[in-house]
Parts: sequence; structure tokens; C-alpha cells
Amino acid sequence: MKPIQAGLLGIGTVGGGVFNVLRRNQPEIRRRAGRGIEIAMVADLDTERARSVVGEGVTVVNDARAVIANPEIDIVIELIGGYGIARRLVLDAIEAGKHVVTANKALLAVHGTEIFAAAQRKGVMVAFEAAVAGGIPIIKALREGLTANRIQWIAGIINGTTNFILSEMRDKGLDFDVALKQAQALGYAEADPTFDIEGVDAAHKATLMCAIAFGVPVQFERAHVEGITKLTAQDIRYAEELGYRIKLLGITKRSGDGIELRVHPSLVPTRRLIANVEGAMNAVMVQGDAVGTTLYYGKGAGAEPTASAVIADLVDIARLHSADAAQRVPYLAFQPDAMSDLRMLSMSEVVTSYYLRMRVADEAGVLARVTGILADAGISIDAVRQREADEIGGEGSTQTDLIILTHDCLEARMDTALAAIQKLPTVLAPVVRIRKEELA
Amino acid sequence: MKPIQAGLLGIGTVGGGVFNVLRRNQPEIRRRAGRGIEIAMVADLDTERARSVVGEGVTVVNDARAVIANPEIDIVIELIGGYGIARRLVLDAIEAGKHVVTANKALLAVHGTEIFAAAQRKGVMVAFEAAVAGGIPIIKALREGLTANRIQWIAGIINGTTNFILSEMRDKGLDFDVALKQAQALGYAEADPTFDIEGVDAAHKATLMCAIAFGVPVQFERAHVEGITKLTAQDIRYAEELGYRIKLLGITKRSGDGIELRVHPSLVPTRRLIANVEGAMNAVMVQGDAVGTTLYYGKGAGAEPTASAVIADLVDIARLHSADAAQRVPYLAFQPDAMSDLRMLSMSEVVTSYYLRMRVADEAGVLARVTGILADAGISIDAVRQREADEIGGEGSTQTDLIILTHDCLEARMDTALAAIQKLPTVLAPVVRIRKEELA
Repeated sequence: MKPIQAGLLGIGTVGGGVFNVLRRNQPEIRRRAGRGIEIAMVADLDTERARSVVGEGVTVVNDARAVIANPEIDIVIELIGGYGIARRLVLDAIEAGKHVVTANKALLAVHGTEIFAAAQRKGVMVAFEAAVAGGIPIIKALREGLTANRIQWIAGIINGTTNFILSEMRDKGLDFDVALKQAQALGYAEADPTFDIEGVDAAHKATLMCAIAFGVPVQFERAHVEGITKLTAQDIRYAEELGYRIKLLGITKRSGDGIELRVHPSLVPTRRLIANVEGAMNAVMVQGDAVGTTLYYGKGAGAEPTASAVIADLVDIARLHSADAAQRVPYLAFQPDAMSDLRMLSMSEVVTSYYLRMRVADEAGVLARVTGILADAGISIDAVRQREADEIGGEGSTQTDLIILTHDCLEARMDTALAAIQKLPTVLAPVVRIRKEELA
Repeated sequence: MKPIQAGLLGIGTVGGGVFNVLRRNQPEIRRRAGRGIEIAMVADLDTERARSVVGEGVTVVNDARAVIANPEIDIVIELIGGYGIARRLVLDAIEAGKHVVTANKALLAVHGTEIFAAAQRKGVMVAFEAAVAGGIPIIKALREGLTANRIQWIAGIINGTTNFILSEMRDKGLDFDVALKQAQALGYAEADPTFDIEGVDAAHKATLMCAIAFGVPVQFERAHVEGITKLTAQDIRYAEELGYRIKLLGITKRSGDGIELRVHPSLVPTRRLIANVEGAMNAVMVQGDAVGTTLYYGKGAGAEPTASAVIADLVDIARLHSADAAQRVPYLAFQPDAMSDLRMLSMSEVVTSYYLRMRVADEAGVLARVTGILADAGISIDAVRQREADEIGGEGSTQTDLIILTHDCLEARMDTALAAIQKLPTVLAPVVRIRKEELA
């Protein structure tokens, strides 16, 4: 089956990410989607930059209308941003019968009603996973994963710039202005950061989640929007003393016969997972009447995380147009004729790190012998703790616990080393071995 | 359009949850799915119990084959569990051309290859969101949300029983046997807890995630399975001292030309979000090459969380059979002709709690006047902190900070109270007001 053809409007940071991820993971994506997905055409005012990204074989134009007019293009990816020209181009693409994939939260939060109605009339998709919380598939969770639920509320850290600034203010006791400058220097905040720090960007995203959760039209104009510019290091410290962190939350909530939609700094109990979401990361909590509380966490911005969401939308569309209805999403994610023959490893082939605890005689040379055996097996040590003998067996005890953290090594080597250690007469009980995962 | 007809095999805890949530949220679900979803028939050996759950109007039988043979039934929901009779019934349902929704991880992890091949031949869906991590839509995230990614690894707390036991062991310094008995008494562990505590249940779930992430067949027989029965309170304490928590993780990972698939206790750095997932909660981390690390958190078991996943699968199937292809999932989650006219509330109508900070003169009666105004407005106080004047302005200072946490109140009342407080001559600067969200 011929690859589905997409045209890209705007090839800045995110556009470049989409192009690169799609090319790098094309075999994997094709096995999942049932057909290839190609960016056949790119429109950007800076055609030179565009050519430098896409190389040969992709048509580069400086007029987005040429992409929309091309009958070969099935999907238009709008990554221009803003409400102006982007609105016109999206409506024109829909009018031309193209599916649209966009990361443009501002456009949809403000003009969504017009755009979705146009798409409905023409029978095309307007997909926007990338518009909220970057690579986190939160739109899919709300539209499809939680359909059984009457949603009660959503609260999200959905702007990485402000969360980075708040983390720095707390960590380093900085005031807002200083933290903002630092965020700008590190590339976490734009030269004109107004949309982020005043809460407008978060409110655009909260508006979209509100519509999806409660089945109401997008109504950005009804959102209460308050940013973080007035927060002081002092309030962050006082909140901390009381057991709270201050986060900029986008909140939407069922309340009586109405819906709340608001973005403002909020105190959140420190023990909640979401209070511990630091730096530029995003997280969204959703409370449904059946499922209870769920939370979705990940990178909310950046070229490749955002590309991850854009491409997920492309795959959704490609699957619609390839498989028969029942097989739209393959049972095991990949098409049945495209399964991998990757080998399942045995445990002895696994590489991981270890926590070892051994009850040993409290005498000279024990540690040297144990670490000698590990060294011979090529296993390097991350940390050693030896308890005081008295702590273990009471006063006058002649036994102690030796605790060792290792760096990564092959499990087979650890098996060999442990067998040797176990034979030492000074090792008095079976060695406890627990694997350690850094998960970073 | 006629509601899609489902037949339920087994109406125990989860089956009852599915029936109740489907009935309770039918209007909401219909607005999302584009048509109703009805449980028209229930099979359970205990027909009396079944009747007491479903009431009048639903056919109750004691033979599951009667459900499968009924030509009116479009979808069979298998909630019997186990590998025996469940396998036969699922295969028979597929053979009869029914879509199948199941929560049976054991069945799919062991007989998945046979079952998916049969479904492929007959062109029906076998949906199993409820089989992994209960209400968390992790199957959807992996199969659809992260399709752009080359998945690197998945690590999950996917068994609530063992996570509850480990949390208790750590919190209270209990040994395994004691914590297990407590979990049984509280209903978090079954009378025969073998599958949970030996890691078998987690391995079934890891096997399914492995297949979906890497496009390999389900291969439970290749999993390394190790439970938590040998863990001691001592190791948990030592790990803690070294900066780690011990969690039972289901791990699957790309490694060279192979795939790791393993379940065992693991040390995890305390600073990771997943290390702070306590009690019976579940969480799954997924690392993809484009998206980076994402995490999905929620209830992994229980009647309604599991029902949430089962019904999401039912809605997926109903959407396939109702809307035209492009509109399978409505843009805004609900069908365009079924949007709600819920009113968006203004900020003054919102009920929340508050952190207030006011710079006040350090003199008698200030606190009484401020709290008096709040009381007059019907606002009750959760906590008050008054700083020492010296802390604020240095020695001899005559100013201090008064910090108040309130209970929930209407924002309009707070606006009124703050206006009055601001007018007090002893309040020396604009009052800082930050909203507080418990998110529980």
C-alpha cells in the first residue's frame, strides 16, 4: 500500500522533530500503522532552512497554499502557530478535504468551534494530541481511555516554562525575576515569555481539556487566567513550611450545574505525586467517578516529545485508511504480518546493577576477600556500607552486615561471583541479592 | 441507532462494576460513543447472585454458551478468569463472530498467540485494556499514544497487592509474613495470594506490555519471575538509608538484539516519582526514543477502576460500528450533536481554599480583627502562623507576617472579606492570596 502523504506547514523546532522522528522510526511506524507515512512536501517562508532539514526528495515551497492545493497530499500538518494565518490555512485545508494534524492550542482554544464544525461538514479529522502536554497522550486518554467515566475534575501542570521557574524559585530561593532570566538563558523561556508566565498558554490547554472532559464547546474567553509573576520566594517558603508546594495549575471541574475553568498558582500538598513534578516536566491528574484518580506524566514540550504526539495522530489517521474496521488498531499494536522475531533474553543475559547484603564475620580481611571476588568477575562497586557489629548482634557481637551497591554488570557474572562469595567461610548466611534500577 | 448488545460472562466483583458503571453513566457514554451500549445477557453459575445485581430486563443464564450462541449479542465480555474454560469460551465467541473484551491477563499471556490469530481470521476485536494496570489506559497509550516511538523500556508497579505489602513493610518496619496477613485482613490480598506475591500476576501483565511495545508474540514462558516473599524489613531499611525504595517491578527492555522480560524486587532511587507510588496503586513508566520518559498512574484493581477499562474497550468497538470512519473518535470526545450546555462558571462562583499572607503591624488585636472578618464572611480557618516580628524586619521590628490557610469557601465571599481586611490600618501591604487545591 502506498505511503500516506503528509504536507508540513512550518518546519521550525517541532516541524524538524516530526520530520526526523518519522524518518528515523519509519520501519517501526510502518509496522504499527500498516502503511508508511511520508512527508512529501514542506512549506516554510525560510526555504533554505527547510531544505537543510529535509534534504533531497522532498518538495519545499514558500507558500503553504501550494501544499493545500496538492491533490497528492492526504494530511496537512499545521505547525505555524498563532491565530492568524494558521486559522485560514487550517480552514482551507479542511475545505480541500485534507485531514489536519496540529499542535496549535491557541488556535483551537479560540477558534475550535468554527474549525471542528468545518471538519465535521467535510468528514475529515482534526487531530491535536500535540496541543496539550507535548508527548503525553492525554487527549487520547480523555477521549478514548476514560470514556466510561463521568469526569469530576482535571488539574494539570501543563506549562513547562512556569514549572521550571517555580522549581528554581523553590530550590534556590530565587525571586521570580531572577528565575525568569535564568530560564531564558537556559532556553526554557522565550525572549517574550508573556503567554507562558501570565498563564495564557496553560489556559489554552485547559480549555481544550475542559471541552473534551465535559462535552462542552471550547470557551477560552470564559477561562480565569492568572500567571506566576506576582509570586515571591517568601510565599513559596511559607507554603513549604505548611506542607505545600506552589504549582501553576490548569483546573477544570464539574461544580453543581456548571463548569469551572481556571489557571492560577495553587498550593498542592507535598505528598501528592503532582507536587513532585519538577523542572520543565508536565503532569495531568484526571479524576473520574469509576476510575478514581489517574495521573499522566512526561515532557510537555521540545522537538521530539511534541513530534511523538504529532506522529501518533498521523498513525491514527493512517490506520483508519488502511486496515479493515475491526483491525484498526492491531491487537498487539503491530500489524500481525509485521511482528518482530527479536529474541527473548534469559535472565543470565540481563545487565543490571545490584544491592547485596551479606551477614559476615566481623574480622579483618572479609571486605577485601568479597570485593576481590567481585573485581575478578569484572564487577565494579558503587557503594559499600559495613554496619557496626554491635548494631547487628548486640554488644560484643562477632557478626556484621556488609551492604554493597554495584554498577551495571551481566547477571551471569554476578551469579558466578555470588557462588564464590557464598563459599567463603566468613560469609555466614545466604547472600541477599536485589536488583537495582535507576529508571533514568 | 440501536444500542450495541453485550453479553457478560461472569458477574463477580468486576462484572458487577461493569454493569453498574454502564448503567450509571449510560447518558454520558452514549454521548461519547454515538450509540448506547447495553448488557443484554449475563451468564454466571450463580444465577441468583447475577439476578440480584442486574435486576429485571436482563436475561440471566447459567451457561455461557447460551450467550455466545445468541445472534443478538455483538460483544462478549469475558470476566471468568483463568486459563481453562475461559480459553474455550473466548475461542468459541470469536468463532461465532463476536468481538471479545476481556480482563484476563493470565489467558492472554499464555494463550494470546492462538487467540489473536483466531480473531484475526474472523475479523473481530479482542480488547484487553483491563488486563493491565486496571483503570490506567496503558494499553491504549502503548498501542496508539506512543506509536511514533522506538520503545526502549517499560518498568511498572503492576500488582497492587505486593505494592501494598511493600508499603506497609517500609512504613511500619514489618516483616513480609506480618504484612501479608494484614493485607489479607484488609482485603488487599486473597486467601491464596500465590499469584500475586510470587510475581506471576505481574509477569502476565509485563508479558502483554512486552508484546505490544516491541512487536513480538506473547511469551510468558520466557519471563523471569521472582516475587517478594524473601524480602526482609532489614533490606528495605538498608535500601532506604542508601536512597532507594524497594518495589516489585515488571520490566521489559530492548537490549542488543534481544528483549528482557523480568519481574523481581528492585531498588529504585527514592527521588523517582514511581518510587513514591504507595499502597495498592499502580504506575507504569515508558521510555521512548522520541517522547523520553512518560508515566501513567492510577488504581490497578477494584470493581470500578477495572470496569472503567472494560467499558473504554466497549466504547472503542461501538465507535467503530457507528460513526463514519473519519469521525470514529469525535474531535471533542463527545458526538457533535450531543454536546452539553453546561454553564461555565465565573471565578466568583468557584469554591476553593486559600493561603493568605498579610504584612501586619505587630500589635495586639490584629489577628482577632482579621479572623473576625473571615468569620463574618462565613470563612473557616484551617491553620494560622504568625512569624516573630524579628524574623521579618530584624531586631526591634514592628511588622510581622500573618499566614492563614482557610477551608473551602466561595471565592465571592473571599473577595468581600479581603476587601475588608485590606482596609484595616494594621494591614500594611496588599494581601497575598494563593488558592490551595488538595487534589484528593
